[in-house]
Amino acid sequence: MPSPEFFQVMPVNDALALLEARWQPQPGTETIATADALDRILAADLHSPEEAPAFRKSTVDGYAVRAADTFGANQALPAFLQVRGELNMGEAPQLTVGLGEALLIHTGGMLPEGADAVVMVEQAQAVDADEIEILRAVAPGENVIQAGEDVAAGALMLARGKRLRPQDIGGLLAVGISKVDVLRPPRVGILSCGDELLPPEADLAPGQIRDINAYTLSALAGQHGARALRLGIAGDDLSDYQRRAKAGFEACDILLLSAGSSVSARDYTRDVINRLGAPGVLQHGLATKPGKPTILALCEDKPVIGLPGNPVSALLVARQLLPPLIARFLGQPLEPPGKVRARLTARVASAAGREDWLPVRLAESAEGERLAQPILGKSNLIFTLVGADGLLRLPLNTGGYDAGSIVTIQLF
Amino acid sequence: MPSPEFFQVMPVNDALALLEARWQPQPGTETIATADALDRILAADLHSPEEAPAFRKSTVDGYAVRAADTFGANQALPAFLQVRGELNMGEAPQLTVGLGEALLIHTGGMLPEGADAVVMVEQAQAVDADEIEILRAVAPGENVIQAGEDVAAGALMLARGKRLRPQDIGGLLAVGISKVDVLRPPRVGILSCGDELLPPEADLAPGQIRDINAYTLSALAGQHGARALRLGIAGDDLSDYQRRAKAGFEACDILLLSAGSSVSARDYTRDVINRLGAPGVLQHGLATKPGKPTILALCEDKPVIGLPGNPVSALLVARQLLPPLIARFLGQPLEPPGKVRARLTARVASAAGREDWLPVRLAESAEGERLAQPILGKSNLIFTLVGADGLLRLPLNTGGYDAGSIVTIQLF
Repeated sequence: MPSPEFFQVMPVNDALALLEARWQPQPGTETIATADALDRILAADLHSPEEAPAFRKSTVDGYAVRAADTFGANQALPAFLQVRGELNMGEAPQLTVGLGEALLIHTGGMLPEGADAVVMVEQAQAVDADEIEILRAVAPGENVIQAGEDVAAGALMLARGKRLRPQDIGGLLAVGISKVDVLRPPRVGILSCGDELLPPEADLAPGQIRDINAYTLSALAGQHGARALRLGIAGDDLSDYQRRAKAGFEACDILLLSAGSSVSARDYTRDVINRLGAPGVLQHGLATKPGKPTILALCEDKPVIGLPGNPVSALLVARQLLPPLIARFLGQPLEPPGKVRARLTARVASAAGREDWLPVRLAESAEGERLAQPILGKSNLIFTLVGADGLLRLPLNTGGYDAGSIVTIQLF
Repeated sequence: MPSPEFFQVMPVNDALALLEARWQPQPGTETIATADALDRILAADLHSPEEAPAFRKSTVDGYAVRAADTFGANQALPAFLQVRGELNMGEAPQLTVGLGEALLIHTGGMLPEGADAVVMVEQAQAVDADEIEILRAVAPGENVIQAGEDVAAGALMLARGKRLRPQDIGGLLAVGISKVDVLRPPRVGILSCGDELLPPEADLAPGQIRDINAYTLSALAGQHGARALRLGIAGDDLSDYQRRAKAGFEACDILLLSAGSSVSARDYTRDVINRLGAPGVLQHGLATKPGKPTILALCEDKPVIGLPGNPVSALLVARQLLPPLIARFLGQPLEPPGKVRARLTARVASAAGREDWLPVRLAESAEGERLAQPILGKSNLIFTLVGADGLLRLPLNTGGYDAGSIVTIQLF
């Protein structure tokens, strides 16, 4: 005969803190093409192997000159210079600039020897085929990027732990770093358990349902930068469950067990987890609804989470636990979920001693105000989440919110 | 001799509106595994092929009963029922519940014929091996999910244009939809042009630089849900440029030309674009810095953008143009960039008639206030963006901001 579940619940953040205090993640590294490294985390400080730019270059179209030759020049009293030719892009200049001389140069072109500034084309005027007048003086270095001005050889470009953005990829490639060492994302293993579960593509007999937790939890893991590892379905048989959990545990960095609904599977999960390694189960029971019977464990320095079998409970609890664990594994700050403020259309109550997560639909009032409509009804139906635009959190011991309250909705 | 560039600039949003008014994107569709469809956009409305759940099931551990048998039961005057056995998970019940009878049932278990409610195990007490007393009456349907209560057969589950979330994947798989038609993301072709450009892995001779725009723009496109198609490097030779642009244009949905710095390449770009198809160039010149000489065009219903060759300019302009085009292609709202408020540490000025984008570093004051430090210096150095945490926008004709102003920084 089944016995009711009694356990001392703990607030979600306290349980997470308990786990994180004992967990020392050891992320591995992998070497990948810099071009493919968007959003990956640098495994080590990167110093520039060379200076950039590698040569002095013009920032404008114009004339490479000796700045001293233009001193005092203005519209009324221009300086006259001999144009000795044009510099080709992508080549080292064959010509040099002597006293009273100029060379036509393009934006990005390499400055020739002798020149120390560039006069913009708008500030010069042709006198004849070989001569120009300069209408404004330039200072030494004007319209020139010096060699190494973008980055010096040996300079720290990007520090360990940096999440790479498009411009970071550009900076690395600019100095020829075409491969980069990044952290390997955590592998999140997901094992479902229950005699009633079949893979989604299977034909169902009466009493059977499709295992969807493996897929909702995979998607959640992927959304937060982890690699999901679906470990299949274990039946309500302790030895099969233990064997699959053990194999999956060895292949992953964080293990999620989505325990079937049957009592036996639920009863097994604690034991299965404790046999994976010490210290084992740290907390059984969270002060959150849905998700109360969740287990947090640490086995041989890998977090193991025992989730309820119900798809709504499993997803809403995993959404609170998995993103912080992934962020911690990668040494990154936790990205807060998107939030909007909205006016609640109905009173919602919460019980003392737990926080509640309520799916809401967002709508707009005739006056253009954003409304949050609680989706009531049974909390274990996945389509209540499919139909929701976000979640309202009723914090521990708040009692609820009155209709008309302005509340914060977490987009989900 | 180069001639200065004169063109009538247009605000970025006006130029985008001009293009979008004439563009009718025709996104294709593709069929993929539902399990892999996170963040993809549904190509068609999806109706449920079956009802879910497919059978009446218990939401608790307890006893399947006839509710009428429990009417009036309470602690003082319990109802007595005969327990006829236990129902296995994942099987259709072999037993039925008759008058005065009960069957042990687990959460998620299929209700047997004859039963119409479930008494929670906490509300029942064993009298002997075959008999229980019921301590609280249940109403018909109590602790039961009816067949079809989650979703009815034929019901609209998810509408065309929906971006799929973890719970949506779960909902689809719950009713056995393991493949799904989604929009094909736009292919964004990127062609760099310039005799001075070499691939990032090449050894450079003096005067040569690495083409990084193909990679920063690829990363930007990927960040916003498009598929990047790097089309290589064209030299400053009109026929090579035209040939590569034409081939790339045919393979993509949106074409970015990152025109080399040389005047010839810049001069060619307009012509190259106009030869790709009508109507061709719609606007040349944007009221934004960096990025003024940008070209917006529409050729045979594909947007073509001529970007400056300078990596900073190219990335900062593409950041304004590409995300709206990708969102429009997929029929999705444009996701606004992340933003923070910060106190500006130095005065920044902007010229009339254009908006300016200024890279800033975020820091924290001794009092814990968030500070935005403008990164000054030459605007065409990629490491100014590598060192930046975000961008400050100086809108058209604002004149700038004083030191100490509270400003909005777009994270980038």
